[in-house]
Amino acid sequence: MNKIEQLQTYLREQSIDAAFITNPDNVFYVSSFKSNPHERLLGVMVFQEAAPFLICPQMEIPDAKNAGWAGEIVGHADTQNAMEILHQTALSRGTEIKSLAIEKSHMTVDRYDALISLFGAIQFVQLDDKVNAMRVVKDEAELEILREAAALADYAIEVGCKSIKEGITEIEVMTEIELALKKRGVTHMSFDTTVLSGSKAASPHGKTGDRKIQKGDLVLFDLGVVHKGYCSDITRTVAFGEPNEEQKAVYDVVMRAEQAAVDAVKPGVTAAALDQTARLVIENEGYGEFFTHRLGHGLGISVHEFPSLHGSNELKLEAGMVFTIEPGVYVPGKVGVRIEDDVAVTADGVEVLTKFPKTLQIL
Amino acid sequence: MNKIEQLQTYLREQSIDAAFITNPDNVFYVSSFKSNPHERLLGVMVFQEAAPFLICPQMEIPDAKNAGWAGEIVGHADTQNAMEILHQTALSRGTEIKSLAIEKSHMTVDRYDALISLFGAIQFVQLDDKVNAMRVVKDEAELEILREAAALADYAIEVGCKSIKEGITEIEVMTEIELALKKRGVTHMSFDTTVLSGSKAASPHGKTGDRKIQKGDLVLFDLGVVHKGYCSDITRTVAFGEPNEEQKAVYDVVMRAEQAAVDAVKPGVTAAALDQTARLVIENEGYGEFFTHRLGHGLGISVHEFPSLHGSNELKLEAGMVFTIEPGVYVPGKVGVRIEDDVAVTADGVEVLTKFPKTLQIL
Repeated sequence: MNKIEQLQTYLREQSIDAAFITNPDNVFYVSSFKSNPHERLLGVMVFQEAAPFLICPQMEIPDAKNAGWAGEIVGHADTQNAMEILHQTALSRGTEIKSLAIEKSHMTVDRYDALISLFGAIQFVQLDDKVNAMRVVKDEAELEILREAAALADYAIEVGCKSIKEGITEIEVMTEIELALKKRGVTHMSFDTTVLSGSKAASPHGKTGDRKIQKGDLVLFDLGVVHKGYCSDITRTVAFGEPNEEQKAVYDVVMRAEQAAVDAVKPGVTAAALDQTARLVIENEGYGEFFTHRLGHGLGISVHEFPSLHGSNELKLEAGMVFTIEPGVYVPGKVGVRIEDDVAVTADGVEVLTKFPKTLQIL
Repeated sequence: MNKIEQLQTYLREQSIDAAFITNPDNVFYVSSFKSNPHERLLGVMVFQEAAPFLICPQMEIPDAKNAGWAGEIVGHADTQNAMEILHQTALSRGTEIKSLAIEKSHMTVDRYDALISLFGAIQFVQLDDKVNAMRVVKDEAELEILREAAALADYAIEVGCKSIKEGITEIEVMTEIELALKKRGVTHMSFDTTVLSGSKAASPHGKTGDRKIQKGDLVLFDLGVVHKGYCSDITRTVAFGEPNEEQKAVYDVVMRAEQAAVDAVKPGVTAAALDQTARLVIENEGYGEFFTHRLGHGLGISVHEFPSLHGSNELKLEAGMVFTIEPGVYVPGKVGVRIEDDVAVTADGVEVLTKFPKTLQIL
């Protein structure tokens, strides 16, 4: 059953007349058309029975067709009222719309007001949970793309390691990485590439800067690529020169925590239990207070999506879920280590998508 | 009068109890704190008399202070309900909030519903127009940053021209440009850098790709940088090798159209008249049907902001407005030329911020 059919089934089951999807990531998910329309209207309207349609800026119609959307495409010019065109096209389907499912976390109030003014007394239903539930389990085609995206992230870490030398700045290392990826056809990173060295790695939200890398530093890479519309996200921490005892100790505990969580992944385990598995390893070594964030996050069309791997999420893992596992220990002003893999839940365990070695690399 | 005071005056004049600003560009404008909070709550709440406050994720509090926000900062952790914290902090100001100005083009329906549920019967006022009107006129500090951003865009075009040689691909030229900018401290482009060659330049929405640049091509660069939170945006079209007669003819008409519009900029002229000035030059040479977009757009914290320079915008230009002037002629499959400058309206005319030569550069 394709995504549109799944939505139609949902509408029939819930007795909702139509759904209007406007979050660009969700539009891509159901239509294969990826676009950032900025302030312009982009959306897919789905009905219980009638044919769905895609509405987009006029000039993007050829791109939408090329992307593989075979249904009707309704264009709007900048001089037209896009919401009125939406309303008229919806009416043309012959179904009276008294209830409409929308992504309340994405729809803006001005468009919401316009829907009310155009469609009249209408009941709005929150669609976010349904689409998130669909997206959280990846099919085989999606998994294959995520594997490719992860391989590109592995390659990026390899390039980063090779570029490190005495006195090179974090920004220069970042530039080497992105340059190498561009040569492999990567046009967008999934977020700002992070290279943090020395005590800067001890801040979980530090920014890549002008600091010169020196012997004795740990260097933390956190990066990912966008590949065929899907994201990867990897973190590795490596040593430039022989690490000291504290660096080795922190690295060791983070690596064991990460591996323990990876090993615990299988259907039926809760997100909270997985978070706890890694956290216990770190707490048992006395570093608990320095693991200040959740274990990980879902990964797919968005670099942060469902599920969220945190201590109070009782969601049970299912085969096909893809997420990061990324424990870290940050001893302020001293040493910071994070190790992050992208993993997929399989029928009976786990597939680790990122393959770069996790034993401490000494450069 | 600083931006917060301007908003306070507006609230008093309009008898609105408070304003809640959540668009990250507007938050930056009023607070100096630039952040992309993704799904997390970020906002500034302003009252008629009481002290404003900024609400942001807990871990961003140090960044907000460093950015220069001297007022109260209220943090929220991922485990907390940020909207409830907002409500409690607002209540602590001692003012009953019966009317609240919000950016309806940015506020999402789920937050809107939360505001209604927390604040009760409340009247919402559209704040977008007010903030846009404030942002549309730049002060001297903003103009100075925009001059610096434009100089970096000039430099990028220079690098692009120097990198062109037989057989280099568009993506390789783009990479050379971005690498050079990174070395000058530019961490973000204001949009995807565009390099289009040959007949690809004849599509106003073409994408930088693997095409190899050849003698006889026109090459179109469209790019800009983010500098101190503000954007530049420049387009130049250059010839690789001796241009043919049609290329020269199209270039000449676009250059004259662009210059005519630049020369016509002064306070009191309407956006529509400016668009018409350039369009007439192009129409008089018989290329009118190939100038398929508006003349330009406002430029500042956002790369596309107010004012919009199109044929039906009767807005009168004022000193301090900054926008692009970017006529283009695209003869499908054959030749495409666009020339774009960033300009500021002065008390009696125009200041052109981008300085790269506009006579046809033959490389």
